[in-house]
Amino acid sequence: MDPQLAQPPADWLVLGGDVGGTSTRILVATGDGTPVGRGVAGGGNPVSHPDTAAAALGEALTAALSGVDPSRVRAAVVGVAGGSALSRPEVRAAFDRVWSGAGVGCAPAYVSDLEIAFAAGTAEPDGTVLIAGTGAVAGAVRSRHLVRTVGGHGWLLGDEGSGFWLGREAARATLHTLDAGEPPGALATSVLRLLGVPDEPADPYWQRVAVIDTLNSRPPVRLAELSPSVTSAYAVGDPQAQQIVEEAARLLFETVCRVRRPDEQSPIVLAGSVATADSPVGAAVRVLVGEGLSGPTLSARDGVAGAAWLALTAVAASSASEEARTRLSTL
Amino acid sequence: MDPQLAQPPADWLVLGGDVGGTSTRILVATGDGTPVGRGVAGGGNPVSHPDTAAAALGEALTAALSGVDPSRVRAAVVGVAGGSALSRPEVRAAFDRVWSGAGVGCAPAYVSDLEIAFAAGTAEPDGTVLIAGTGAVAGAVRSRHLVRTVGGHGWLLGDEGSGFWLGREAARATLHTLDAGEPPGALATSVLRLLGVPDEPADPYWQRVAVIDTLNSRPPVRLAELSPSVTSAYAVGDPQAQQIVEEAARLLFETVCRVRRPDEQSPIVLAGSVATADSPVGAAVRVLVGEGLSGPTLSARDGVAGAAWLALTAVAASSASEEARTRLSTL
Repeated sequence: MDPQLAQPPADWLVLGGDVGGTSTRILVATGDGTPVGRGVAGGGNPVSHPDTAAAALGEALTAALSGVDPSRVRAAVVGVAGGSALSRPEVRAAFDRVWSGAGVGCAPAYVSDLEIAFAAGTAEPDGTVLIAGTGAVAGAVRSRHLVRTVGGHGWLLGDEGSGFWLGREAARATLHTLDAGEPPGALATSVLRLLGVPDEPADPYWQRVAVIDTLNSRPPVRLAELSPSVTSAYAVGDPQAQQIVEEAARLLFETVCRVRRPDEQSPIVLAGSVATADSPVGAAVRVLVGEGLSGPTLSARDGVAGAAWLALTAVAASSASEEARTRLSTL
Repeated sequence: MDPQLAQPPADWLVLGGDVGGTSTRILVATGDGTPVGRGVAGGGNPVSHPDTAAAALGEALTAALSGVDPSRVRAAVVGVAGGSALSRPEVRAAFDRVWSGAGVGCAPAYVSDLEIAFAAGTAEPDGTVLIAGTGAVAGAVRSRHLVRTVGGHGWLLGDEGSGFWLGREAARATLHTLDAGEPPGALATSVLRLLGVPDEPADPYWQRVAVIDTLNSRPPVRLAELSPSVTSAYAVGDPQAQQIVEEAARLLFETVCRVRRPDEQSPIVLAGSVATADSPVGAAVRVLVGEGLSGPTLSARDGVAGAAWLALTAVAASSASEEARTRLSTL
């Protein structure tokens, strides 16, 4: 395989993968970026559940390759959330077994989810990428490789401004309201409803106990399920929600700034559900980035398209055009 | 039993109890506040482990009553961390079984740990109390009863400025240092040592992964074990530790302010390992309270003495003097 090859043979295919906590996605495309197969399966934390994550990868691979000869795939790039997962022998072994079983014509290159998110947002080789979904992490990319990471410490230790953080702040604001014996506003009302805590009879003491008990009896990461309350309360001008959105945007912007020099001109790619342009936090982050940093701000819509495009750059650099990237990103 | 009785009969005893997450303590005393029996046993969360907590109570009761006739006890007050625990039938039933078995001459009054902490700090009936240990909670006390609580939401949702919070901030500061590729200062070095993460060879990437993995593989509340790193690094002038201490004090002071009017003249009682006068956070809280609030700042050393003194106020109000309180507090 010659990376300088001008055009790959017409029967060559490339494969991109995105293994995340929520879903596992595979995209197979021709050498000009035309998608020919897609597969989607459930997600899973590869570190805590390597076999579940590998099984999801297998399911998505089978679906994506169902209409093509797997041996035609000449380059494969798979992004995995949690950069260090594949360094664990048991995770790597589970993934290797599934890959062998799928009959793909080459070994995959496993890369950070930050690398595929960056490539999903731009064809440029250098820049900065922020993923803000349930967690929050930023990275510096040079020659399409991640060279530094900031954040991504998980809900217990960080992920400031993430979906988990938004949900926790929504719960905290609700408890502050109940502590003070004040009537719940739009945010607190939405949180109480999502948690199934009756607002009639409205006894703040028992509502407070019910909120604490309910949230402490579930896996902590489920606090992220309260983040839509922030979005809906923000839309009606709730002051608590406004403060949380502003603080989340500030924290995400800080995370970006910790990985990027202020004078850099390269693109800043924003990815993940919290950072989309139509979410209030994503919109506020774009304002801060526009005011405080140089370089274009771009949105990554589909990590798996970035992965397939990275596979294309590996198999035939000159085919990996912006046009091919656009074709791959067509959903 | 007449609460207005000038002096209780000489053979009457009072009993105080302090049921906490770390230890369970019982103090038995005569009507003038002279201790005649003590018992200490392990702690336990009454909500999640009612039988363990009840067994610890039984063990401490047996030890404290070993030298006296239990039927002589005419008033008993027991403080329980987590005010709502005893409202759960299974918790109450487990406690009732143990109490009956001990042969005490009266039923116990179960009260909030905030009430006994306040009584451990002052003989005044009204005021404000802050407990900052592994968690953080403040309360308003009127006529020796808790009338309002702020905070105490647990490590997942709050406890800002607590031992858990200090430990988490120490971990976060360490990760920020490693993210930035900077050499660890006194705080980060102490955290890495406590976690058993080798500082040679010093590869920040793998140190970062090791810190995240180690902390996420343990029960989250064990983050509180890192709080001594803040104290030791503060002592040598570490800037990260100084910032954490100042922020903890500010958050604890805010918690107090949310439960107290600025013009109140009543005492402010500080309790718990983080709020002691000789801890850096406790010292900084005292400065903020002295500058921002009226009323004397007092320290509660021993919750069980406050509980026994509250028992004394119930059995014979006029015997419940400051002198009796001082005698009860003699360790």
